[in-house]
Amino acid sequence: MRLALDAMGGDDAPRAMVQGALDYARAHPDHTVILVGRDEDLRRSLATESPLGTPTNLVIEHAPEVIGMAEKIKALKERPNDSMNVAARLVKEGKADAMILCGNTGCSVAAAQLHLRRIPGVKRAGIAAPIPTVSGQHTWVCDMGANAECRPEHLVQFGEMTAAFLEAVYQRPNPRVGVLSIGEEEEKGVPLTQETLALLKATSLNVVGNVEGHDLFKGTVDVVVCDGFTGNIALKTAEGVFEAITHILKDEIGQGGPLVKLGALLTKPAFRGLKRRAHWASVGGCPLIGVDGVTIIGHGRSDRVAVFNALGQAARCVDGKVMERLRAFFKSV
Amino acid sequence: MRLALDAMGGDDAPRAMVQGALDYARAHPDHTVILVGRDEDLRRSLATESPLGTPTNLVIEHAPEVIGMAEKIKALKERPNDSMNVAARLVKEGKADAMILCGNTGCSVAAAQLHLRRIPGVKRAGIAAPIPTVSGQHTWVCDMGANAECRPEHLVQFGEMTAAFLEAVYQRPNPRVGVLSIGEEEEKGVPLTQETLALLKATSLNVVGNVEGHDLFKGTVDVVVCDGFTGNIALKTAEGVFEAITHILKDEIGQGGPLVKLGALLTKPAFRGLKRRAHWASVGGCPLIGVDGVTIIGHGRSDRVAVFNALGQAARCVDGKVMERLRAFFKSV
Repeated sequence: MRLALDAMGGDDAPRAMVQGALDYARAHPDHTVILVGRDEDLRRSLATESPLGTPTNLVIEHAPEVIGMAEKIKALKERPNDSMNVAARLVKEGKADAMILCGNTGCSVAAAQLHLRRIPGVKRAGIAAPIPTVSGQHTWVCDMGANAECRPEHLVQFGEMTAAFLEAVYQRPNPRVGVLSIGEEEEKGVPLTQETLALLKATSLNVVGNVEGHDLFKGTVDVVVCDGFTGNIALKTAEGVFEAITHILKDEIGQGGPLVKLGALLTKPAFRGLKRRAHWASVGGCPLIGVDGVTIIGHGRSDRVAVFNALGQAARCVDGKVMERLRAFFKSV
Repeated sequence: MRLALDAMGGDDAPRAMVQGALDYARAHPDHTVILVGRDEDLRRSLATESPLGTPTNLVIEHAPEVIGMAEKIKALKERPNDSMNVAARLVKEGKADAMILCGNTGCSVAAAQLHLRRIPGVKRAGIAAPIPTVSGQHTWVCDMGANAECRPEHLVQFGEMTAAFLEAVYQRPNPRVGVLSIGEEEEKGVPLTQETLALLKATSLNVVGNVEGHDLFKGTVDVVVCDGFTGNIALKTAEGVFEAITHILKDEIGQGGPLVKLGALLTKPAFRGLKRRAHWASVGGCPLIGVDGVTIIGHGRSDRVAVFNALGQAARCVDGKVMERLRAFFKSV
């Protein structure tokens, strides 16, 4: 297993990428992590993070150019030797089994589609994002931002692809598929959601109907489809609430008396459990489903743990033969 | 001040409505609360909740019919003497200064528009929902669900009306107005958000540009406009995260040892602070802005505290002369 990691993309790149890659390479001596980025920067970062030497299964692929977090997609054409282009070519040429990109999402998605193309039959690739739920199993939302505008047939394919992904990678047979809308009744919503629901019901998927924003966290549905605009707003809203609650609680504890502060200290294991179960970093990355090659889109704010987990997510997709399964599915329809 | 409360609408009606109304009537002896609903049911509930007698400023307006939480809008025409129709007529006829409806949102919005009509010049009425932020001041999102589909000119009016509401009721001069989108850059988003931003910039509003889902909780923007589909998904997602975090934390504490449980006990004041600052019930209701008469849409799951706060919200709108201000604004444009 060879995993190509864009080491230059992400708010804390290359540091967080190098740290996560070191952890992963040490934990998985039979896998190879390919750090893609500026050779000099990566050598310096590796020397800092691992002064006693680098594991032999961690290698550098030099990519002299860099694309920043706020740049536009045209940067990909202007800098063909940036780390995203190089990582995607490694997968295209069979030199890597998967790639993990935590930089600029727009450019990451474009680089994947440019070099790897879509699986024949797939109309749009979507980002499938795992949402932590109270049941412990994640609900997967697709699309969380690759396509701001979608047609019903795109959402149907997101449902088919994400369901196949869950079956292959998480052994969840016959996943429950819902449409993100604003009421459970079939007639609620907008034309996009209404037509999507009607089309989904004509497939062999296990369709549960419309689901609402609060249903994302209950564990009562496995796959939720929506356009990338809606998905992105739901995901970022969820992150925002998590952060606001953490902030307000810290604030209240800071203003509390010594007993409240002692209580907070004693409760730490519960908060660690919450973070482990509910924070996005514990999953690490979102598959870009529909592209013809395993591509994991990581969070721009990925830290060492998130990068480690995103590498693991990529490896699971390769092991689960997601690509083979999706290619076979779209060949058969 | 006379406030008409639909006592039959809400998951815990009439109990929660009667409880909240009792609390409010006792706290505000100079205001009158009109409980609208089935006379017999309300008398029985009042006798249970307040066995020693009812404050004189709490009165019943009999409405023999009832519309359930899941009924369709046509029920309003079929049952002209249900509690929503009767409450709206009280406002229309000048017998109440405001109404508070916690039942079926679709029927509540329709009843308000049917009887009170929109302020001349207003194209769509929108529900303005307050979002708790880390700064302590709420960010108001409009529309959170009255109109699933909107055009850019509707969103511009939501911005104008919600800004005028904040100036009048919360003395927040020159509120910062943003468009809910999926990236801060102007070109990000979909045609609706792009055109809305361009139109907003041509107004005299204090426009800050696009904002994202996580910006709703930072206190860096006062008014956020979006279509009702997007707003409803953001709001329900936020509620869902709050509930999921509470659930997971309780679970972790339950599984923790005696020290963790002691810690949780000691930390209770901080959690109460969080609930007071961040839970929707602490605001209680959302103004339906643009309708020609003060209308507060409460949460279907409103409890005693939420009803009490929704009544207060209605009174603040009347005191702040929101209607007069909005009528003058749309006369001048």
